[in-house]
Amino acid sequence: MTIVGVRGRAERLLNVLGERDLDQMMVSDRSNIRWLSGFTGSAGVLIISASGHVLVTDGRYTEQARDQLDAAGATDVEVVSARTLGEQHNAVIAAAGGKAIGAEASVVSYGTWSNFAARVDLVGVDGVISDLRRSKDDAEVELIAQAADIASHALADVAPMIAVGVSEREIRDELEYRMRKLGADGPSYETIVASGPTNAALPHARPTTRQFSEGDTVVIDVGALVGGYHSDMTRTFVVGEPTDEQQRWYQLVLEAQMAGLDAVVAGARVSDVDRACRSVFESVGLSELFVHGTGHGVGLDIHEEPFLGASGQTELVMGDVVTVEPGLYRVGTGGIRIEDLVVVTSEGHQNLTTHPKDSPCLPSRRTI
Amino acid sequence: MTIVGVRGRAERLLNVLGERDLDQMMVSDRSNIRWLSGFTGSAGVLIISASGHVLVTDGRYTEQARDQLDAAGATDVEVVSARTLGEQHNAVIAAAGGKAIGAEASVVSYGTWSNFAARVDLVGVDGVISDLRRSKDDAEVELIAQAADIASHALADVAPMIAVGVSEREIRDELEYRMRKLGADGPSYETIVASGPTNAALPHARPTTRQFSEGDTVVIDVGALVGGYHSDMTRTFVVGEPTDEQQRWYQLVLEAQMAGLDAVVAGARVSDVDRACRSVFESVGLSELFVHGTGHGVGLDIHEEPFLGASGQTELVMGDVVTVEPGLYRVGTGGIRIEDLVVVTSEGHQNLTTHPKDSPCLPSRRTI
Repeated sequence: MTIVGVRGRAERLLNVLGERDLDQMMVSDRSNIRWLSGFTGSAGVLIISASGHVLVTDGRYTEQARDQLDAAGATDVEVVSARTLGEQHNAVIAAAGGKAIGAEASVVSYGTWSNFAARVDLVGVDGVISDLRRSKDDAEVELIAQAADIASHALADVAPMIAVGVSEREIRDELEYRMRKLGADGPSYETIVASGPTNAALPHARPTTRQFSEGDTVVIDVGALVGGYHSDMTRTFVVGEPTDEQQRWYQLVLEAQMAGLDAVVAGARVSDVDRACRSVFESVGLSELFVHGTGHGVGLDIHEEPFLGASGQTELVMGDVVTVEPGLYRVGTGGIRIEDLVVVTSEGHQNLTTHPKDSPCLPSRRTI
Repeated sequence: MTIVGVRGRAERLLNVLGERDLDQMMVSDRSNIRWLSGFTGSAGVLIISASGHVLVTDGRYTEQARDQLDAAGATDVEVVSARTLGEQHNAVIAAAGGKAIGAEASVVSYGTWSNFAARVDLVGVDGVISDLRRSKDDAEVELIAQAADIASHALADVAPMIAVGVSEREIRDELEYRMRKLGADGPSYETIVASGPTNAALPHARPTTRQFSEGDTVVIDVGALVGGYHSDMTRTFVVGEPTDEQQRWYQLVLEAQMAGLDAVVAGARVSDVDRACRSVFESVGLSELFVHGTGHGVGLDIHEEPFLGASGQTELVMGDVVTVEPGLYRVGTGGIRIEDLVVVTSEGHQNLTTHPKDSPCLPSRRTI
């Protein structure tokens, strides 16, 4: 397993904090803690400070924390074990040393914030670490690529099972089972298998016991989790022979998706990518059937910065890993979505999704 | 699928709020929202108010929300769709009608709280709904019992696979796959399969690629999710013939667990249950090897009120669903834990866990 090194990240955070006249931050978001230190436990607060970094956790995690910090290269983070929540707060206050400390106002609960604010000067600092997390390094991209590859292989194994009488849940179960057999730590998110005139028309449908019928569109949105990093992919199949309308929709979504991918280069605005997709549907009067945003960043979280929507002014940067996932949905007809995961590079972008997408037909008619 | 009806719950909440001179509450915790309304979407705020209940959510969930509220009997909750976070906040403020409103200070982020508090009088109200959620009704107990049954059956199917050379992850994969085949919506939590002298000695170990060896203890902590409700069970196996010490430890843990179960009756303090378990280990000088609490409530959350620890003064009530899960752990020896899930009844309690626990031996030596 590739180990992601964290060296230099705390210093980059301190540089950004310095621009806000802060020299320390209390980090509570689990993905932010992992990105800065390698620690994956479910309980803990990380203090990044110019006068020394401290991870406060409880006895369950003390040993694991030391091992994970050392493996990630965060050898300069002191691990402090505190039994109760009160002791943990005391340890954080002690580490703050009486000076103002940044904290994630969108993560810390009002109750916890109030407890701290009565004893130390807390300053809301949101979005700073999620911005730093955008540019993935080589080890991160490698893990995301592994996760994407596992999902592609699992889908290639399972797609031939899609046939009349098989249920959405059965396909979901097989996909998640096979991703694990292929080395995933688990699914990246709740796998979507959405079929037929109603379910496939819902972008966020959950798999049901509905069995596939001839002529169904089947939207499969599946990703793997490897070493904490997510992948994200969608492919759409048709059970039997696609109708003319299904073929037409499929080609439109594919055209929109390719146009969106073409727009993914460093320096492009996220709204440019969205516009590239949306204009294909507008040109044929179907834009109202594309009911969601075009994509989002993927990394330690399945949904993270940057978000690719119609109004975003954020510019893509090297190392951004984003989805491009246009779709068309109409109850009665069903839905079609095609989604790839790409990393922004000096040459434009590299597509991490290897599963074919040139046609909605199943790769084979055999059932296994 | 059993549908849990929510009728009367909002009124019970309003009664408790009335004791605090509040006549409305903004509910943000997802399990609390589900318990009060039946809504399962990932985004939404529920206002329970003497002047009319309102669920504010976004367009993705409007249709699903109406269906789920109606199915659960929450026909008196108005569904308001708001596109942006700002619009959602406006809708909540409008529903509050200028009067003070309770909110979960331990759930709402400081950022969100501050935004609201600038426009309406927010009052911290924590623990009220989690207290109400403790007494499970018949439909809830039925779903938890179904989940427990599925986990028991899956473990019965998979236990014969435990053999030299098989890995922790392989057993985990099979358990989760079979639970789904048996009708679970998924695993209740990250399944634990912890083996051998080191992994089994960690109460919260995550499954690794470690392969079982002769003489290993194998701790399997597994539950299923059915209709939003969790189950929780632990069984410990020995690969091959148990040593005398393993036999002795197993019998001690079993004795402690039975003593703990005997203490589970309405009116008992949670610390009484903990004491009953712990004193068995104290009598033989092993209490330091029992490194965690004795149990916790289980329902819409896998860990919820009441928590069964050494210092808790809470009294058990009818309908409490709790685990009793003593264990012994020592690096070098491994670990043994036995956990059942029980519901407090008028006759004491009913055990929802059907998997046998009388011996650490595998039910059969065959491999499949």
